[in-house]
Amino acid sequence: MKALVLEKQHDLKIRDIDLPTPPVGPDDVRIRIHTVGVCGSDVHYYTHGRIGHFIVDRPLVLGHEAAGTVVEVGSGVTRLAVGDRVCMEPGIPDPKSKASRLGLYNVDPSVVFWATPPVHGCLTPEVVHPAAFVYKLPDNVGFAEGALVEPFAIGMQAAVKARIKPGDVAVVIGAGTIGMMTALAALAGGASRVLVSDLMVEKLAIAQRYEGITAVNVRERSLRDAVAEVTDGWGADVVFEASGSARAYGDALAAVCPGGALVLVGMPVEPVPFDVVAAQAKEIRIETVFRYANVYERAVNLIASGKVDLKPLVSATYPFERGVEAFERAASARPGDVKVQITFGDG
Amino acid sequence: MKALVLEKQHDLKIRDIDLPTPPVGPDDVRIRIHTVGVCGSDVHYYTHGRIGHFIVDRPLVLGHEAAGTVVEVGSGVTRLAVGDRVCMEPGIPDPKSKASRLGLYNVDPSVVFWATPPVHGCLTPEVVHPAAFVYKLPDNVGFAEGALVEPFAIGMQAAVKARIKPGDVAVVIGAGTIGMMTALAALAGGASRVLVSDLMVEKLAIAQRYEGITAVNVRERSLRDAVAEVTDGWGADVVFEASGSARAYGDALAAVCPGGALVLVGMPVEPVPFDVVAAQAKEIRIETVFRYANVYERAVNLIASGKVDLKPLVSATYPFERGVEAFERAASARPGDVKVQITFGDG
Amino acid sequence: MKALVLEKQHDLKIRDIDLPTPPVGPDDVRIRIHTVGVCGSDVHYYTHGRIGHFIVDRPLVLGHEAAGTVVEVGSGVTRLAVGDRVCMEPGIPDPKSKASRLGLYNVDPSVVFWATPPVHGCLTPEVVHPAAFVYKLPDNVGFAEGALVEPFAIGMQAAVKARIKPGDVAVVIGAGTIGMMTALAALAGGASRVLVSDLMVEKLAIAQRYEGITAVNVRERSLRDAVAEVTDGWGADVVFEASGSARAYGDALAAVCPGGALVLVGMPVEPVPFDVVAAQAKEIRIETVFRYANVYERAVNLIASGKVDLKPLVSATYPFERGVEAFERAASARPGDVKVQITFGDG
Amino acid sequence: MKALVLEKQHDLKIRDIDLPTPPVGPDDVRIRIHTVGVCGSDVHYYTHGRIGHFIVDRPLVLGHEAAGTVVEVGSGVTRLAVGDRVCMEPGIPDPKSKASRLGLYNVDPSVVFWATPPVHGCLTPEVVHPAAFVYKLPDNVGFAEGALVEPFAIGMQAAVKARIKPGDVAVVIGAGTIGMMTALAALAGGASRVLVSDLMVEKLAIAQRYEGITAVNVRERSLRDAVAEVTDGWGADVVFEASGSARAYGDALAAVCPGGALVLVGMPVEPVPFDVVAAQAKEIRIETVFRYANVYERAVNLIASGKVDLKPLVSATYPFERGVEAFERAASARPGDVKVQITFGDG
Repeated sequence: MKALVLEKQHDLKIRDIDLPTPPVGPDDVRIRIHTVGVCGSDVHYYTHGRIGHFIVDRPLVLGHEAAGTVVEVGSGVTRLAVGDRVCMEPGIPDPKSKASRLGLYNVDPSVVFWATPPVHGCLTPEVVHPAAFVYKLPDNVGFAEGALVEPFAIGMQAAVKARIKPGDVAVVIGAGTIGMMTALAALAGGASRVLVSDLMVEKLAIAQRYEGITAVNVRERSLRDAVAEVTDGWGADVVFEASGSARAYGDALAAVCPGGALVLVGMPVEPVPFDVVAAQAKEIRIETVFRYANVYERAVNLIASGKVDLKPLVSATYPFERGVEAFERAASARPGDVKVQITFGDG
Repeated sequence: MKALVLEKQHDLKIRDIDLPTPPVGPDDVRIRIHTVGVCGSDVHYYTHGRIGHFIVDRPLVLGHEAAGTVVEVGSGVTRLAVGDRVCMEPGIPDPKSKASRLGLYNVDPSVVFWATPPVHGCLTPEVVHPAAFVYKLPDNVGFAEGALVEPFAIGMQAAVKARIKPGDVAVVIGAGTIGMMTALAALAGGASRVLVSDLMVEKLAIAQRYEGITAVNVRERSLRDAVAEVTDGWGADVVFEASGSARAYGDALAAVCPGGALVLVGMPVEPVPFDVVAAQAKEIRIETVFRYANVYERAVNLIASGKVDLKPLVSATYPFERGVEAFERAASARPGDVKVQITFGDG
Repeated sequence: MKALVLEKQHDLKIRDIDLPTPPVGPDDVRIRIHTVGVCGSDVHYYTHGRIGHFIVDRPLVLGHEAAGTVVEVGSGVTRLAVGDRVCMEPGIPDPKSKASRLGLYNVDPSVVFWATPPVHGCLTPEVVHPAAFVYKLPDNVGFAEGALVEPFAIGMQAAVKARIKPGDVAVVIGAGTIGMMTALAALAGGASRVLVSDLMVEKLAIAQRYEGITAVNVRERSLRDAVAEVTDGWGADVVFEASGSARAYGDALAAVCPGGALVLVGMPVEPVPFDVVAAQAKEIRIETVFRYANVYERAVNLIASGKVDLKPLVSATYPFERGVEAFERAASARPGDVKVQITFGDG
Repeated sequence: MKALVLEKQHDLKIRDIDLPTPPVGPDDVRIRIHTVGVCGSDVHYYTHGRIGHFIVDRPLVLGHEAAGTVVEVGSGVTRLAVGDRVCMEPGIPDPKSKASRLGLYNVDPSVVFWATPPVHGCLTPEVVHPAAFVYKLPDNVGFAEGALVEPFAIGMQAAVKARIKPGDVAVVIGAGTIGMMTALAALAGGASRVLVSDLMVEKLAIAQRYEGITAVNVRERSLRDAVAEVTDGWGADVVFEASGSARAYGDALAAVCPGGALVLVGMPVEPVPFDVVAAQAKEIRIETVFRYANVYERAVNLIASGKVDLKPLVSATYPFERGVEAFERAASARPGDVKVQITFGDG
């Protein structure tokens, strides 16, 4: 089977690879892949050959943000049919684990996740997947949006954990891909307005295009002042940290209101200096986010309803044959790019 | 002072009345009233002379849904200034009560509430009110919308107590004024879609005009079926009962999903037969709503943001001099009417 | 295999029965049964031949409250070993269902539950069970207590859903087996005191023996008065309805505090008349309970810690050979009996 | 009036001081002080002359942990009577502030708090206090325990915010006064067991005396191992950080379970290095604690019920005349001391 294979750091190619082709079990479906988004983690494996203790020490098929079409269904599958257009959760937990029984399958230590060594990803024409983690796309949701459900799900998880109350004022620090996803999830999820802060004007320009989002260039004014102005000095009900920058933590504590929530989405590479007393003085709640659980359906619902428009976030689309180019573009980190996608043709 | 006075059941007039005119205390403001909505409870006092054990046994000024302009501020008030356009919470709790300390000031037994015997309402040119319960209207929110914040706040309270998660599917049973308010609050508050059910086509037509709301005529199809269709048989995450009809309870239990929430907004005049075992089989949570607490600011935020458009819900506006006509229209309960308002001219 | 078999209504015998003896799969364990409690539902099948639409139309092995010893473990089981003393959850969900993914496996419609037609129970010397629903008993927890974990788990589920805050005052209406279990769970779960109400002095006497429980004989004084006395008129933070009696609902609404919680544990046979407006006036939250999910481990922890003493609740123990007598005693509903158990000898 | 006055850093004396003696307003009571505990913050003002930006720049009466007897009640006070034995919340918020309306009066920026410059404390024979923040002690709760309600309230606030579920396994890092209070609150508040870790054997010995508490000497074994042993490797449901030490944060993240809660009670003097990714990998929730709100009544209830025994925590009691000695003892920080108290004689 052809696949986009990371041989080792900096060495990416499309080639035939001998993948285990499991039979379609009773609870599985086979999916013809149509669109796969390139994630920052895919790029990081390409450019660094590792993420933390996950090391690319043998050829690895990349890709985990996928949409496609069901081409075969297992004997026990009733919720899906051949021809259904679908998106997939890339992480498969052990359904019998304690974490799964608790409904926290994302923190199950035994999760198997696409494109995380040694597990291959989905940049290949066909995959077999458990039906329980495959979600049908309504007619008005295209494959490009379907492949965006995965990164949007992270924003959704953040918005769910924030426990937004209708009309809350929210802040998202960082206008990167995940910041944008979080801002859109918060806005659709009940916030009356979302302030998105960043240093890069190209990213802020994309955020500002959405009604309900106010872009804040922190080179020009402090986040604290911007929040104070729209909240009469009280502070934001929810602050999402989506930059991964240690410096954002001071801003976050200054921007959040007494009794408010701080949601940690960004992943700093080092421990951050955290002012515990400042957090206590406002008695804030802090939530952390790890991937997502039980949000794909609600994500698809919001996209289908028109409350969330992800289409402007696709910056470029490459055919599978030019997949290496797609990675090079993603790796070049153009400030105006949100998401690069790869398609397999007719899907 | 002129006021719209309910002398006794069926006897309503505009006349001079000797109202206690309190001085503006240090924490108070004086407000020139601009717009007052006619509430179902106002009409009920007019047509029945009582609500439960609240009896109109002496002349009573009606009205509690109000917006106006600050004309005087107490010495300790810093958040408001003369000229501010505002709306007001009609219920004033004892801030030192146990309920208030808990943040549940709406259930403080000592609440004093406009137009609830023996407390006069606000259908009179001027009122004095504690600044803590007066909320500034942004420039893009008119007096008509300002006077709608009170009924919208009930929908907001329902939406807050539902603990909507982003992308939830919600149902509102009953497309009356409160049902509409609840549907709009739920939609702005995170629901991906809201099904609103009723028997009256005029009411359903108003609901259907909003993007994101699906009107369900329960003469034509069951609510259960309508919900099953959009949720793949699972049920709605949240069902709001806003009809006050005992018959709605069976529909509500059929429509809600396992682990879902049922929010009781409508007030049935008699105890309803409730199928406890059916509720247990889905292990649902049931929330009840009594007026509102701490939602006015978030309500104003959602209106100002454009996420909630209440303007189409004003069905007719009468000058104060024709206030009795306004009540007659409201009492006639035209199915296409949502809200009748009364204005005092230049505001 | 010998088993206690309900042939049909009123016809119970111990006899050989040809049970499917599944092999121990990789995720299963085989358990030698030691103790089985007789549940009200077992008795109800015996005396009525049905519960709702569950009808005993062919021979059925009864029993679902069990403890025993692991005698064989599947190849994939690491958490348990031969010789472990254990108790078991009697309901097995589909781990891939939507309810299971959400952590709500108790409301999974596909749950298979012991001694619920057509599924056989565990009043038989050996069973095979998925290891994920088998829980090890610490050395200081006996088999009798182990077999009480199942009914205690219902009280635990009620206590978890109540979201008791440390120091809450709780009420349990009904001092039957489930009422007692709920009271003990609430007390261990954070309540400062629990008032248990009933009409039967024998049951109240058992409740009163526990420190922290106050028995209220509602023949002698109203529950409302008893609660008002200990809460300075405010009301109980949590009221658990565990009687299944329609008449309890008025008491429950009178006893609960503003903003409090009402937890519905008892299962009334008919719809109850419910005063919605009375519930709204206090803006209470109502939770419903269906069996339990994710509470067995915490139940075992509380028993092992000594915070919950279930031993006094075993009223009588019969050897398996006299199992029919055990059922007759349970069916006789002696007011002083809480739980009748059956043992298989050496366990 | 005589009082224990901190003239300036290191200069403490009992002397006459001219305190404003406010009249007893309609909502106030006058209290004759019986017992006052010496808090770490009192000692810190004594030894350092400041805490953060609160600076002792003129004579300050110390003391804020108090119990006494009502000697006069305002005209509007109905809940209290002369002769009532009471304890008092030392912080008085503005009841009309936004924080107060939300039920978060502890984070109201306008709180006036005893013994926080420039506000005098209660180490003086009489105080006038708003009745809303005065709580009656039941007959079986002595003055010594009454004066311990204040520090216990911090533990209670931590336990409330933890949202302990019945049977949770909890960890408290730090066996100082606040750690002990937190452990007892967690245990009474639903935990099945509490592991308390420290380095000092005298402190651990006091903790170990309580049934349900397991002392962990982290010089001898790691907290992670101790927790893994009692939770089968899963981790603790709730970890309370009560040491204020930056080094504790690594232990806390290692000890908490997936989906668990970390409650920050201790106040580190500097920002701590915080491993965000480690917190995210378990998707934990972090709560912060600032004093307390709405917990005094529940604290008193737990003490009165016998579920919490604070009496062993009084290490020494001094008469008011020897109050300076009491401070010297407290400042000497004997490892076996938990709380030093000062009494005014007959109370």
